[in-house]
Amino acid sequence: MKATPVVRVADIEVDPAQREAFISAVREEMDESVRVEPGVLALYAVAEKDDPSRLRFFEIYADGAAYERHLQSPHFRKYRATTEPMIRSRTLTETIPIQLSSKLDPEQGVGRG
Amino acid sequence: MKATPVVRVADIEVDPAQREAFISAVREEMDESVRVEPGVLALYAVAEKDDPSRLRFFEIYADGAAYERHLQSPHFRKYRATTEPMIRSRTLTETIPIQLSSKLDPEQGVGRG
Repeated sequence: MKATPVVRVADIEVDPAQREAFISAVREEMDESVRVEPGVLALYAVAEKDDPSRLRFFEIYADGAAYERHLQSPHFRKYRATTEPMIRSRTLTETIPIQLSSKLDPEQGVGRG
Repeated sequence: MKATPVVRVADIEVDPAQREAFISAVREEMDESVRVEPGVLALYAVAEKDDPSRLRFFEIYADGAAYERHLQSPHFRKYRATTEPMIRSRTLTETIPIQLSSKLDPEQGVGRG
């Protein structure tokens, strides 16, 4: 039986003057997380075209335990400490997955990698 | 050379009374799109836990042409026609990809499937 993935959405507005530094830190953290954590299935970040200091995150974890482990990982804790002063506002949204269709898993939805 | 993926974010609020019908239609459309369209890499839909009639979409296309083809596809057009009366508000956001880290492509980012 497949665990239900945990999906988190985050909307983060960064200080425009520190946008590049923020992006550099978040790229490193996302890359590392997906590479070393089996339960971190996908971490996506995009900027709004009309206001590139507004960033949208969409994150897929294998299950709740994988998400909790991610929050405790050294790379995530380092990223949070580094970027905290660069952030103007942060809205984290818990979600209920409706449909996760990806070429990652032709059986429909997101598998365990 | 890899084309830059096109990522779209959509925030859709549906009529709560028609939520199940909307979800059924959108699941069918997303499943079909990822299955038959080579350039539709991932379509994700989640509901906000605090207000499940508010849905968040995160969509990844191989490039702009793949996105345009998707809009013209019969399954997408059928979905739009079916669900239009169920929707209370819709915000579509164009984005600039910052980082797309997924176990889909160990080379970092989203490949062409």
